[in-house]
Amino acid sequence: MADQAFVTLATNDSYARGAMVLGKSLRNHKTSKKLVALIGPQISEPCQAVLKLIFDEVKVVDVLDSGDVAHLAMMNRPDLGVTFTKLHCWTLTHYSKCVFMDADTLVLSNIDDLFEREELSAAPDPGWPDCFNSGVFVFCPSLETHGKLLQYCTEHGSFDGGDQGVLNGFFSTWATADISKHLPFIYNLSSIAIYTYLPAFKQFGSNAKVVHFLGKTKPWSYTYDAKAKQFKGGVSEASAHPTFLLDWWTLFSSAVVPMLQEQYGDQPFHSG
Amino acid sequence: MADQAFVTLATNDSYARGAMVLGKSLRNHKTSKKLVALIGPQISEPCQAVLKLIFDEVKVVDVLDSGDVAHLAMMNRPDLGVTFTKLHCWTLTHYSKCVFMDADTLVLSNIDDLFEREELSAAPDPGWPDCFNSGVFVFCPSLETHGKLLQYCTEHGSFDGGDQGVLNGFFSTWATADISKHLPFIYNLSSIAIYTYLPAFKQFGSNAKVVHFLGKTKPWSYTYDAKAKQFKGGVSEASAHPTFLLDWWTLFSSAVVPMLQEQYGDQPFHSG
Ligand SMILES: O=c1ccn([C@@H]2O[C@H](COP(=O)(O)OP(=O)(O)O)[C@@H](O)[C@H]2O)c(=O)[nH]1
Ligand SMILES: O=c1ccn([C@@H]2O[C@H](COP(=O)(O)OP(=O)(O)O)[C@@H](O)[C@H]2O)c(=O)[nH]1
Ligand SMILES: [Mn+2]
Ligand SMILES: [Mn+2]
Repeated sequence: MADQAFVTLATNDSYARGAMVLGKSLRNHKTSKKLVALIGPQISEPCQAVLKLIFDEVKVVDVLDSGDVAHLAMMNRPDLGVTFTKLHCWTLTHYSKCVFMDADTLVLSNIDDLFEREELSAAPDPGWPDCFNSGVFVFCPSLETHGKLLQYCTEHGSFDGGDQGVLNGFFSTWATADISKHLPFIYNLSSIAIYTYLPAFKQFGSNAKVVHFLGKTKPWSYTYDAKAKQFKGGVSEASAHPTFLLDWWTLFSSAVVPMLQEQYGDQPFHSG
Repeated sequence: MADQAFVTLATNDSYARGAMVLGKSLRNHKTSKKLVALIGPQISEPCQAVLKLIFDEVKVVDVLDSGDVAHLAMMNRPDLGVTFTKLHCWTLTHYSKCVFMDADTLVLSNIDDLFEREELSAAPDPGWPDCFNSGVFVFCPSLETHGKLLQYCTEHGSFDGGDQGVLNGFFSTWATADISKHLPFIYNLSSIAIYTYLPAFKQFGSNAKVVHFLGKTKPWSYTYDAKAKQFKGGVSEASAHPTFLLDWWTLFSSAVVPMLQEQYGDQPFHSG
């Protein structure tokens, strides 16, 4: 359906690489939905150009520029910068339903069935499983909801300093109200879960549909030698989920790097 | 109600100490339910005596002795020893509904409202949150269910080698079927969750009703100086949940140690 879309966000060139790989992974698994990238004004021209080749819509969102209610909220809570930018996805009212996906997620099979779910559907967060993880969620764009979210944000802040705290505070009945709003964990498999309960990963992990590289070290933080097919330096944490990391890099090297090379031309850029 | 009970399990004197503290914590918070301890035959006489002072019913369960279907199952899967013993709780058919609690749990407030829930209700496991944690669960004793569980166990084994794998395999719709069977996480707050998502713990942790010391290091693994009110040696992992650990030891020192001293008489025993 034309009025349904996957939406991601990137405020800098590093996260933009994540968004590119995510977009490519959605295309590779033949999504029938539109792809939208929300970007910050700092994204370089070449990266914007590549994003435009992968996504149907690339929208610059600059909370500081916007002069509206989002701007006002931002002035009161400058600590929640990226969070306000993420909440911007609710303003995409030319779509009736969307799935937000963090730029550090990777799709492993077609997940268009997510659009059968209602707002707000999300998978549990490992760590504190009565909270949902805000890396993948189903939502319905609405200016009214957007306004309420900003208001909530301004009044209550975020218990974790990020969008996950705000969204869990706002959609506070997620844990108790409706099981259909609990996405299976394999739609947002945090790489952290692999080592905390390895037998469960071995049992259920092969059905993973989306892997989420949450935490400090992102796939693009590593340096990868595409010819030798190996990571330079230590793969410390990553060794716990080496296949997913390799999947990310294989897609980045084969499908994204050539596009970046074309756009950057003679300019140097970090390709691995 | 007389036909409802909290049930725990201890197969050795270490876990028996955990069971004593758990039983005391339930009494302190004025439960109106019966307390049942399932014990293995290795439990020493003095420990049995103390358990009998705290619990309404202390039942020796020896899978190896039982000569019935449980014994047969055990012969096929000797690796699942303690698991078979835990499943024994389904044979307590003189109760219509029970709440099983691991011996490494501690009750922080009255939780009799758990008996409003149906079988099988449990809280999500941090780590792989589409599995429930089998440290606290509501169940209905039934020889039929017990038989089916043993059969499942024998045929499919346990994906994690323990009771949690078996129970999640058997009650496999827990993640998707009925939100009322999802106990709030504060009814089985794994100490591990405290450091994996600290802001959530700070936000919701003060409402904790049951803390679960899951993992290798149990409260009784530490050495505590009750007079100085501090742990001997390093409190490494425990430093992440010092209050709960202190709660456990305070109750153990003040309420359980005197009972053990009375029973052991002149015999030496490990009190801290
Ligand atoms: O500097 C930033 C930080 C975050 N994000 C976006 O916000 C999401 C959430 O942040 P992140 O994935 O780093 O958080 P985590 O999942 O590790 O908690 C990212 O995936 C991006 O889509 C961004 O664009 N720029
Ligand atoms: O040697 C043992 C191991 C376990 N248990 C019982 O089985 C439960 C589950 O084991 P444990 O709590 O050690 O597992 P964890 O919660 O750390 O995964 C314990 O709380 C006890 O009730 C026992 O009686 N003896
Ligand atoms: Mn993320
Ligand atoms: Mn336990």
